[in-house]
Amino acid sequence: MQNLSAMDKNTLTEKEAELAARLAEFAAQNLNLDMTRGKPCPAQLDLSSNLLSAPGRHFKAADGSDCRNYGGLDGLPETKALFAEILETAAEHIIVGGNSSLTMMYDALVRAMLFGVPDGDGPWMRQGHLKFLCPSPGYDRHFAITEHLGFELIPVDMEEDGPDIPRIEELVAADASIRGIWCVPKYSNPTGVSYTDSVVKRLAAMPTAASDFRIMWDNAYAEHHLTGEADALLNILPLCQRAGHENRALVFASTSKMSLPGAGVAAMAANPENIADAKRHLGIQTIGPDKLNQLRHLALLPDLDRIRAHMRHHAEVIKPKFDAVQRVLHRELDGTGAATWTDPRGGYFVSLDTNDDGCAREALQLAAQTGVKFTAAGAPFPYGRDPRDRNIRIAPTFPALTEIETAIQVLATCVLLAVVRQRLRAE
Amino acid sequence: MQNLSAMDKNTLTEKEAELAARLAEFAAQNLNLDMTRGKPCPAQLDLSSNLLSAPGRHFKAADGSDCRNYGGLDGLPETKALFAEILETAAEHIIVGGNSSLTMMYDALVRAMLFGVPDGDGPWMRQGHLKFLCPSPGYDRHFAITEHLGFELIPVDMEEDGPDIPRIEELVAADASIRGIWCVPKYSNPTGVSYTDSVVKRLAAMPTAASDFRIMWDNAYAEHHLTGEADALLNILPLCQRAGHENRALVFASTSKMSLPGAGVAAMAANPENIADAKRHLGIQTIGPDKLNQLRHLALLPDLDRIRAHMRHHAEVIKPKFDAVQRVLHRELDGTGAATWTDPRGGYFVSLDTNDDGCAREALQLAAQTGVKFTAAGAPFPYGRDPRDRNIRIAPTFPALTEIETAIQVLATCVLLAVVRQRLRAE
Repeated sequence: MQNLSAMDKNTLTEKEAELAARLAEFAAQNLNLDMTRGKPCPAQLDLSSNLLSAPGRHFKAADGSDCRNYGGLDGLPETKALFAEILETAAEHIIVGGNSSLTMMYDALVRAMLFGVPDGDGPWMRQGHLKFLCPSPGYDRHFAITEHLGFELIPVDMEEDGPDIPRIEELVAADASIRGIWCVPKYSNPTGVSYTDSVVKRLAAMPTAASDFRIMWDNAYAEHHLTGEADALLNILPLCQRAGHENRALVFASTSKMSLPGAGVAAMAANPENIADAKRHLGIQTIGPDKLNQLRHLALLPDLDRIRAHMRHHAEVIKPKFDAVQRVLHRELDGTGAATWTDPRGGYFVSLDTNDDGCAREALQLAAQTGVKFTAAGAPFPYGRDPRDRNIRIAPTFPALTEIETAIQVLATCVLLAVVRQRLRAE
Repeated sequence: MQNLSAMDKNTLTEKEAELAARLAEFAAQNLNLDMTRGKPCPAQLDLSSNLLSAPGRHFKAADGSDCRNYGGLDGLPETKALFAEILETAAEHIIVGGNSSLTMMYDALVRAMLFGVPDGDGPWMRQGHLKFLCPSPGYDRHFAITEHLGFELIPVDMEEDGPDIPRIEELVAADASIRGIWCVPKYSNPTGVSYTDSVVKRLAAMPTAASDFRIMWDNAYAEHHLTGEADALLNILPLCQRAGHENRALVFASTSKMSLPGAGVAAMAANPENIADAKRHLGIQTIGPDKLNQLRHLALLPDLDRIRAHMRHHAEVIKPKFDAVQRVLHRELDGTGAATWTDPRGGYFVSLDTNDDGCAREALQLAAQTGVKFTAAGAPFPYGRDPRDRNIRIAPTFPALTEIETAIQVLATCVLLAVVRQRLRAE
């Protein structure tokens, strides 16, 4: 298709009719496609089917303790060692949790609200109006946690090297009410960006007005590569240590998108003071996490080599879906000037921006009317508001390949139609 | 042995030497026995060994959804139905959690601190100095939660029909800073008392100065009978409803001591307003509990009949241990006037009171020196302080039968020695 910018009003009007007619054809197919969430597909889950009958008779930990009974507040030593490998740290810096790293993040911030954190001045809840930085587009569930806990959410643009670090440095140096930042540092949700060395170093080293500033480092996609070339990410914990900010980063990971999302194992890594502080509260909150589920995972994924082999099988399943998204978007949108989009080397999402502001919501409404649901427009932004209304998150892992091709064709048509209408309105 | 009260000083002095010599004989055996916690023994855990290879290929819920993937905030409908049976309510009044009812209780109180509860006036944390009632002796981990969250713990005596209800009525009517009470209403930890109908009705109906008073109703031993005659417990939820206090009770249960303690399934029951309030926060805290573990439990314990049959097997394993405790205590202490103790019809504990105040700590120190550990003296009381220093909690389920016989012989000797020394000091 011709570049929309080269079209006069008559051509745009013709184009609108043509696109609307095309969309009507799709609508006539009674589509019911769901591209809303980053869920693994059944073929990915099948890769972990050995978990379903584990641990069998092997219910003892390496130290001989019976994993069927109470005990073990912060995880089995061998599970801690496994997460230490994933997160490039030592086992004593790890707390193993339940089935959700999101819950561990929520709980970490709840502890800060109720009790305060090392280097801080008591409960955050007693310190008035607090703020949290939200690189955007980002992960809606992160933002929801801090919104729910009463923080003001401060958006910061996601750039191609990570979040806008000069802007962050400026904000945190000036405002002690800013207590933290959400980061998905590798294959970011949804842009697929991995933070560059420079960004990671500056996050670790930047002066902050708050003495107890926290980086919520959600390394959700540490081993979730789509290509043979894995993005490299600097380890933030030693960088914070070296910069004299040893308590700054809380690092999270889970097996949710390695094994089974509802029944995985999550972990937090941090420096000894943060770990000791968390354990002091955890010892009151719980008698300990499910150790049998840890044993199951140790049987399936005993070390980083096996995890990497396992994740290559995941990539074999989902890479063709990401390729289909790229293929259809290029075919439908190249040369139109209607949108740009990411081509991630890992993670779970493709992020599309319409070229013109004010088009994403309309495009997704059109898609929904055509039977194709995407993540709600604005969801990856604080308060669900995309200030430019142009971002669309595409989650290609769950649907079947043929569904994705159709869904992305519909999406491309809707994007074109929304942009054309926007330009006609602007005429 | 003769009643200690009938002994003169010389006889007591002889008795002291005799008991000390007997204890020295035990000490020479290099005992290392642990009666500290209410943990199931391996033979009990073996009853649930089918869980270890479940759910196998049966990873779909009754509605056909794939339990390996994300979703299901408050539990599978069939798990909710199972807990509804256990707790005599409807499935819509149930939230299924992770592996720990203790964590659900902690989280419920954390939500009250941060956000407040229905019928209340906002976050409890913003309402100054608050208090919580602690029927004592009671469960140390309950008291620890409220102590950790900053409540002042108000002890209330446990009587033979439940906690001292006239005293409770008086306290809660007068003091709006009292926001709740901990209850283990059936086979209480550690006294084994089940609350009478009258006590349950009065707890539900009593006027409270606080509009948002909460009963933390930990029905941990709902089906944990030791004899063929199960204690009956009134259902507190409809009683609260009828009394116009529909939001008063939060009810908890788990399979921890039915299946595997580290890897069980927990649940909360409450009226619709409390359930809706909890879900509003849970939707931020988690994507949902481990549904595969729910499926495992549904395979092992599909309904209340199967649970009851399963719990009879548990009783077969542990009843002889409780019997041994009674046998040895009667043999060693009958007629001495040194102590009284409970003979529970269910639950996990025997509670012993020395006749004289100020003897429990010394008796347990002597036992520890002899190689037999019990729950620390005072642990079942707020702040770990038994005001009369006379209560000893005995947890007979975990050790082997022969160990229990030895441990209780040692304990009886220590109790006698402590009481004799106390009386000699008082001479």
